Amino acid sequence: MSRQGLKTYIHDKPPSAISYACVGGKKEGEGPKRKYFDKISDDPYFTTDSFEKAESEMQKQAIMITLRKAGLKPCDIDYILGGDLLNQCVGTSYSTRDIDIPFLGIYGACSTMAEGLLISSLLLSGGVGRLALAVTSSHFCTAERQYRFPLEYGCQRTPTAQWTATAAGAVLLSAAGNAPYIRGATIGNIVDLGVTDANNMGAAMAPAACDTIKSFFNDTKMKPSDFDLIVTGDLGFVGSKILYQLTSLEGINIRPNHKDCGLMIYDREAQDVHAGGSGCGCAASMLSGYFLPKLQSGRLNNILFVATGALMSPTINQQGESIPSVAHAVWISHSKGV
Amino acid sequence: MSRQGLKTYIHDKPPSAISYACVGGKKEGEGPKRKYFDKISDDPYFTTDSFEKAESEMQKQAIMITLRKAGLKPCDIDYILGGDLLNQCVGTSYSTRDIDIPFLGIYGACSTMAEGLLISSLLLSGGVGRLALAVTSSHFCTAERQYRFPLEYGCQRTPTAQWTATAAGAVLLSAAGNAPYIRGATIGNIVDLGVTDANNMGAAMAPAACDTIKSFFNDTKMKPSDFDLIVTGDLGFVGSKILYQLTSLEGINIRPNHKDCGLMIYDREAQDVHAGGSGCGCAASMLSGYFLPKLQSGRLNNILFVATGALMSPTINQQGESIPSVAHAVWISHSKGV
Repeated sequence: MSRQGLKTYIHDKPPSAISYACVGGKKEGEGPKRKYFDKISDDPYFTTDSFEKAESEMQKQAIMITLRKAGLKPCDIDYILGGDLLNQCVGTSYSTRDIDIPFLGIYGACSTMAEGLLISSLLLSGGVGRLALAVTSSHFCTAERQYRFPLEYGCQRTPTAQWTATAAGAVLLSAAGNAPYIRGATIGNIVDLGVTDANNMGAAMAPAACDTIKSFFNDTKMKPSDFDLIVTGDLGFVGSKILYQLTSLEGINIRPNHKDCGLMIYDREAQDVHAGGSGCGCAASMLSGYFLPKLQSGRLNNILFVATGALMSPTINQQGESIPSVAHAVWISHSKGV
Repeated sequence: MSRQGLKTYIHDKPPSAISYACVGGKKEGEGPKRKYFDKISDDPYFTTDSFEKAESEMQKQAIMITLRKAGLKPCDIDYILGGDLLNQCVGTSYSTRDIDIPFLGIYGACSTMAEGLLISSLLLSGGVGRLALAVTSSHFCTAERQYRFPLEYGCQRTPTAQWTATAAGAVLLSAAGNAPYIRGATIGNIVDLGVTDANNMGAAMAPAACDTIKSFFNDTKMKPSDFDLIVTGDLGFVGSKILYQLTSLEGINIRPNHKDCGLMIYDREAQDVHAGGSGCGCAASMLSGYFLPKLQSGRLNNILFVATGALMSPTINQQGESIPSVAHAVWISHSKGV
């Protein structure tokens, strides 16, 4: 592959997303994207006895459905890249401990699916193995009690708060395959403009999204209109508006073809999710359930998938620190390019 | 590079570790490896006002010393891979947010330095950038209060407990350079043999170390005597003994040339650290301070660096779950090979 600029890598031989799946919870099944999930569980425990174990079970189901769709077994896969929002990423390590695939843990908060696709596509493209799986998840009940308040407390949420999706997504990449193709990726920098409100993740993450989008277009000399869609992960209503302002200041107009996964997964008014959805599983499920099938069939030609993550912990936030964020961009296309 | 087996990748053009540094705390400075640290701080706060911020500051110092030794600036580096033990890896995201290098977060608990070297060497070897930095850290005071008990409680420790090192290590890899070289790496599987005692990490991690060591030797057809040393990260006294038993059962005798970073960093008796040292910073500092200079000068020719990580969280451990672990192996050599 060739280095196209400071942070962006374009594949000479683009790896292919040969299989993908997503699993969601009850609220996600009541939303406008219900039919795009491979499986919906009305049981928040996913038949386990804790929410943390439920998240692992949900993620495991996404992995197994992805493998089944491809007609492959775990031993066929060279490595798996995964992570989640839980302390020490236990959603992922407990989901994958029974699956016989070499494991690389990653942490990018809600940018995890983009980071997983980025690293695995660059590894495959460099000749490291033939098949790699990227996976992530989030669960409303695990995230809420870990990051904010006990669920039983029934705390009132602020207007800028987002609703952590109960969802998992998995994508299987192959060094050789058919559409959709991973054409390139931009590794994001950590950006922190000083936002300290843990109930306004959109505002904290929008500057990272802007920085990475700007890098991608600078590095590739492409423009937003070269894409059917620029898809951000989980900026929600507040963060998306800030992203429009920030990109405008950089002379980039993404407004005509922008979609945010946090504004897609729920009906914001009817489902009372305030500023929208969030969580690793939000962008991962919308990508694997909604966008990748359209990129496979050719109903979409080109998207830039920019998932964003807020990299704080409650501990450091309570020490008065602001919230650093990161965004990674992945260019996914129906065509293989030259 | 060529696929040598199920999990091991050998570099055709081995990347080189062109610079490295480590920073430690007071106890590490009182230990037998004091002179191998680039810097020792007697202040556990590293001039900040919290232990978490101290860990970030320590890690940042390791990065900046590494860059200074190489005569490079952050903008020269293509990407950084880092992570740590803290919830949401904040040790790393707050250390790197002010450093202008594209960032990829990884999570492998105490195996993080091996995972960072593994991924960055495979990326460089595949043509992704020219310079990559792997970094990690741990801090006794952040880890103890997060994983176990409040420091003020002065809890008595069990004989199998290990002492989390206050240390950070950074390694800068180049696609082209001089010795030492990263010759290859094995991506480990998650292994969980059912250990539930969070005060006996050595026992939980030894099976993962054995699994990865076995894979490396099976895949490469090499044998332990081909290495000056097989260096495990942080198994300590208990875990090392278990590793000897497990590898013996596989017909592999590592005892004559095995060293464990957890048994090197402290004087186990005089410093009252029970089963030895642990923490991401333990293996990272022993690698970058002690082993890499010897591999550069040729005093060591070949080591297999196998850092191990326990992937549990206190939450899931308190739910009665056992402790899954992972180990990644990195073959580091004074010679470039064929």
